[in-house]
Amino acid sequence: MATATALSGVIPPVCTPLTPDYEVDTASLTRLVDHLLDGGVDGLFVLGSSSEVAFLPDGHRKVVLDTVLGHVGGQVPVLAGAIDMTTPRVLDHVRVAVEAGAAGIVATAPFYTRTHPAEIAVHFRTIADRAGVPLYAYDLPVAVHSKLGAGLVLELAAEGVLAGLKDSSGDDAGLREVVLGRRDRALSSFSVLTGSELTVDSALAMGADGVVPGLGNVDPHGYVRLFRAASAGDWAAARAEQERLFRLFGLVNAGGPHMGRGSSALGAFKAALHLRRVIDHPTTALPQIPLDADEIAVVGKYLAEAALV
Amino acid sequence: MATATALSGVIPPVCTPLTPDYEVDTASLTRLVDHLLDGGVDGLFVLGSSSEVAFLPDGHRKVVLDTVLGHVGGQVPVLAGAIDMTTPRVLDHVRVAVEAGAAGIVATAPFYTRTHPAEIAVHFRTIADRAGVPLYAYDLPVAVHSKLGAGLVLELAAEGVLAGLKDSSGDDAGLREVVLGRRDRALSSFSVLTGSELTVDSALAMGADGVVPGLGNVDPHGYVRLFRAASAGDWAAARAEQERLFRLFGLVNAGGPHMGRGSSALGAFKAALHLRRVIDHPTTALPQIPLDADEIAVVGKYLAEAALV
Amino acid sequence: MATATALSGVIPPVCTPLTPDYEVDTASLTRLVDHLLDGGVDGLFVLGSSSEVAFLPDGHRKVVLDTVLGHVGGQVPVLAGAIDMTTPRVLDHVRVAVEAGAAGIVATAPFYTRTHPAEIAVHFRTIADRAGVPLYAYDLPVAVHSKLGAGLVLELAAEGVLAGLKDSSGDDAGLREVVLGRRDRALSSFSVLTGSELTVDSALAMGADGVVPGLGNVDPHGYVRLFRAASAGDWAAARAEQERLFRLFGLVNAGGPHMGRGSSALGAFKAALHLRRVIDHPTTALPQIPLDADEIAVVGKYLAEAALV
Amino acid sequence: MATATALSGVIPPVCTPLTPDYEVDTASLTRLVDHLLDGGVDGLFVLGSSSEVAFLPDGHRKVVLDTVLGHVGGQVPVLAGAIDMTTPRVLDHVRVAVEAGAAGIVATAPFYTRTHPAEIAVHFRTIADRAGVPLYAYDLPVAVHSKLGAGLVLELAAEGVLAGLKDSSGDDAGLREVVLGRRDRALSSFSVLTGSELTVDSALAMGADGVVPGLGNVDPHGYVRLFRAASAGDWAAARAEQERLFRLFGLVNAGGPHMGRGSSALGAFKAALHLRRVIDHPTTALPQIPLDADEIAVVGKYLAEAALV
Repeated sequence: MATATALSGVIPPVCTPLTPDYEVDTASLTRLVDHLLDGGVDGLFVLGSSSEVAFLPDGHRKVVLDTVLGHVGGQVPVLAGAIDMTTPRVLDHVRVAVEAGAAGIVATAPFYTRTHPAEIAVHFRTIADRAGVPLYAYDLPVAVHSKLGAGLVLELAAEGVLAGLKDSSGDDAGLREVVLGRRDRALSSFSVLTGSELTVDSALAMGADGVVPGLGNVDPHGYVRLFRAASAGDWAAARAEQERLFRLFGLVNAGGPHMGRGSSALGAFKAALHLRRVIDHPTTALPQIPLDADEIAVVGKYLAEAALV
Repeated sequence: MATATALSGVIPPVCTPLTPDYEVDTASLTRLVDHLLDGGVDGLFVLGSSSEVAFLPDGHRKVVLDTVLGHVGGQVPVLAGAIDMTTPRVLDHVRVAVEAGAAGIVATAPFYTRTHPAEIAVHFRTIADRAGVPLYAYDLPVAVHSKLGAGLVLELAAEGVLAGLKDSSGDDAGLREVVLGRRDRALSSFSVLTGSELTVDSALAMGADGVVPGLGNVDPHGYVRLFRAASAGDWAAARAEQERLFRLFGLVNAGGPHMGRGSSALGAFKAALHLRRVIDHPTTALPQIPLDADEIAVVGKYLAEAALV
Repeated sequence: MATATALSGVIPPVCTPLTPDYEVDTASLTRLVDHLLDGGVDGLFVLGSSSEVAFLPDGHRKVVLDTVLGHVGGQVPVLAGAIDMTTPRVLDHVRVAVEAGAAGIVATAPFYTRTHPAEIAVHFRTIADRAGVPLYAYDLPVAVHSKLGAGLVLELAAEGVLAGLKDSSGDDAGLREVVLGRRDRALSSFSVLTGSELTVDSALAMGADGVVPGLGNVDPHGYVRLFRAASAGDWAAARAEQERLFRLFGLVNAGGPHMGRGSSALGAFKAALHLRRVIDHPTTALPQIPLDADEIAVVGKYLAEAALV
Repeated sequence: MATATALSGVIPPVCTPLTPDYEVDTASLTRLVDHLLDGGVDGLFVLGSSSEVAFLPDGHRKVVLDTVLGHVGGQVPVLAGAIDMTTPRVLDHVRVAVEAGAAGIVATAPFYTRTHPAEIAVHFRTIADRAGVPLYAYDLPVAVHSKLGAGLVLELAAEGVLAGLKDSSGDDAGLREVVLGRRDRALSSFSVLTGSELTVDSALAMGADGVVPGLGNVDPHGYVRLFRAASAGDWAAARAEQERLFRLFGLVNAGGPHMGRGSSALGAFKAALHLRRVIDHPTTALPQIPLDADEIAVVGKYLAEAALV
């Protein structure tokens, strides 16, 4: 199951541009992919949380897969999220993604239903058994409402069930436990990716292999510079780049208290891509509340301060 | 959107029998429907949490809808859960359920994604606008990780967006707020159903219209007796029946600490239906852990004490 | 340890009136006690959450104990909260309360520290062993962040450690489990009191012995009528009274979003007592935010609608 | 209020040794202080969570203050926790600590009671106003059940209310927000200390000034080496030392599932100090469950692997 060498580098979760009538905007999507490849990213992750996967019907998910995989044409590996409540539903998404040519599958623990480590193990084992491509566990407690324990992750890694971890838990001690456990067990091909886009320098210093940054849609060049500085051992430069990106990240709070933080963050990413002329519309999926003109202007100010417009 | 008179009575969430290879066991499913109708239930709710809806791929969901709606043939109203993460995905399920003939749709607030009352309002308004059949809000914080506020529910009821509420939050003060608010606003056709199967007498005494009891799969006659006693104002009899059902409910803990509480409860319901010869297999969907023989024997003891085998 | 007959009826948690410079206003406190006794309450609970016990330094706690116990002079039993983080600190409060003449002690599980059922058992056993008066467990997950399991409560009741339970968890299925378990184990002297002041009719119908209502400070007569109606089996009257009190309870939201819900609720109780001329000042303890004039006017409107001013 | 230069370095939270009959073991406490000073620590923090402050009655707290402050005699600054539910109760502890000679006070947001940022601001402002020594905010959501927002912390820092932050939230993005905000506002005397003892290298690389490590009781020399390596810019050495300490930290799980994680961790620290012959008894306060002989042997193995016995 596992790749020979661990997946590494900057692998942004690709936003899903929508038309004003809520269809996938494939022209904008391919431009976004080009924007990311131009930034020097090492891979792409489609159908993740920043892709609004929770809002995409199956039809839209397939359009995204076909569009991105067709356009990328093997230049970089493309991972696909198979995000659904439990094993049988995830397996349907896995089948579609593998047929479309995804290089790997990213799946969370079960959600909506109450779960248990023994059930999570069955879940990942069953998916890996059917997928035929590498499987990455996606640890996202804010959405899934359970935390993947380091012990379970390492056990499934040693079994060959998991090819890697995308850790968006924000628990850096837990990330360190996985990194050290990987070293102890000589699981060198197991890939540890952080989704904590504001502490990437820390994660890389600990020994993580890469990052899946939502903000990487807006500024892929920045994350690539950060990764390269860290890879070269220039931690001061990595930290400076991360601090710059930290400040840019403030745009996620552009949306006011009349909307949820998800509406605000995803709306801000898309507004930024629109302002940067990468995508044609800043539309986010229902039932998210759109940013208004003043809120979009706030996004613009962040871009201006970062010299991105 | 709203029905002329509020939906009321006992409306069990119908378990979804599976074959040992995890297909929908339609023969068992129709027997289960007959068992429930024989018990005197007032309606059926398919594709709810007790139906393992979170575990059913779209293909299975459609089989369930077609099987139950075809078999019931209009004898009682059949509500269908349209359980998914956000509006666009829910709408796909709504379309299928309405085409299959569901009398009403049951939907939760968005989950997986972070949400906000303004977004929940857009969500329900959009669904009601498209459904063409009555829409019931499903308040299930243990799965959805947000609570539907009484104020929002009543506002959407007054707008005609919601035809009713299935309240599985366990918050009886909140239930009372909805019941009193309905009275104040003269929303007599708005249906208030409790999913708290262990305090049905309390909910009915407060003014709720009915109950959606998972345990009603195992003992529909009991819940019908309870509802009829309450309707007749015989609160002592209602309480006695509820206490009997409370004790029977202990079977949900048959599964040991090596599984989650969901595996245990759904496994116990299905084991009980199997022991009662209603369904052919006690199989639960992946990745749930099955009850072992000793655990099933515990379920059997509960049934024996309740004179149900 | 246990009393011969279970404590029952209406036992309000007595608010702690403060002077504008944040000292205990003992004159107002004795007037409040008279107001409650005049309402016909069956006991008093000092130093509970509604008493702002969390805000009272030890010196103030002692003043409250001495004032109330001196004034009541044995007319009704007075329970005292011994609210602190862990056993050794609780024991200090127990000693003071028992010396002052409290008829019983009310204590929560440990908080601030992470805890475990085995530790909670040691906690209550140690307190009961030292107290020399009946010990009541206080289940208040919103403050304590753990839930007392029914099994543990019943085990400690059977041991004679606990004389009763004050259940403010809002979990009515859990309350029913305790009530039925008490019946099964013939623990007739074990007292089950609900702190859920909005569903008292439900709790009493289930078999609870009484209620500890914060709102009982404002309208003790109402809760006494509710309890007497329920005791007489007049459930319609009990429900009507509870519904009236439910609407009155709306005053707890008088405080706006610039303060916490605790500041709002305790501020509203005190404002109501001030408007009813029971206490001299509506002052709440630091760091609570006081209600402003408009917010106090809202409290007044609730009182006027309830014909309490 | 603020110190001229920010407090920095290794400032362990000093464990509180107890005799078998649960009194403060002052002889062991002074030996522990010597052990820490010998390790080269830059300050001491008494009456913090690792000191079992939640379990110490006021009498014990005073003994600890007098013992440690008397013994240290100004060699290093000694901060004192004033840990209690709300402002008035905290103020009582502040008075005692300041009289005993504490160089600074450490206080959390209110707990047990529901709180709000406006109330937290009043809380810290009131404490700082009365204390007369620098005040450090203690962010410990696992105990306090609210998170101190970076914006509020920086606002109170700019006002001169807070002299520093002890961040035990595990939220490294939040820590970074405080570090960058301090830089932007030129609050150079504001001290940022991490309590996340497993990611100290990360925190120091971000710009934190020091660490308050519970495990520093067991191995102060290790944390001092880590801090010195980081201060010298030798991040590889800092990381290696942190990884060694990470593995040693595994001893906190010596206690089995029959106890809470707090009992296990504090029991393990004390068992380690006992095995290292620093303190005379491994006793932890009630109602914690003590480690048994096998569990203590596990602690011994961790020490042996770390060459600490």
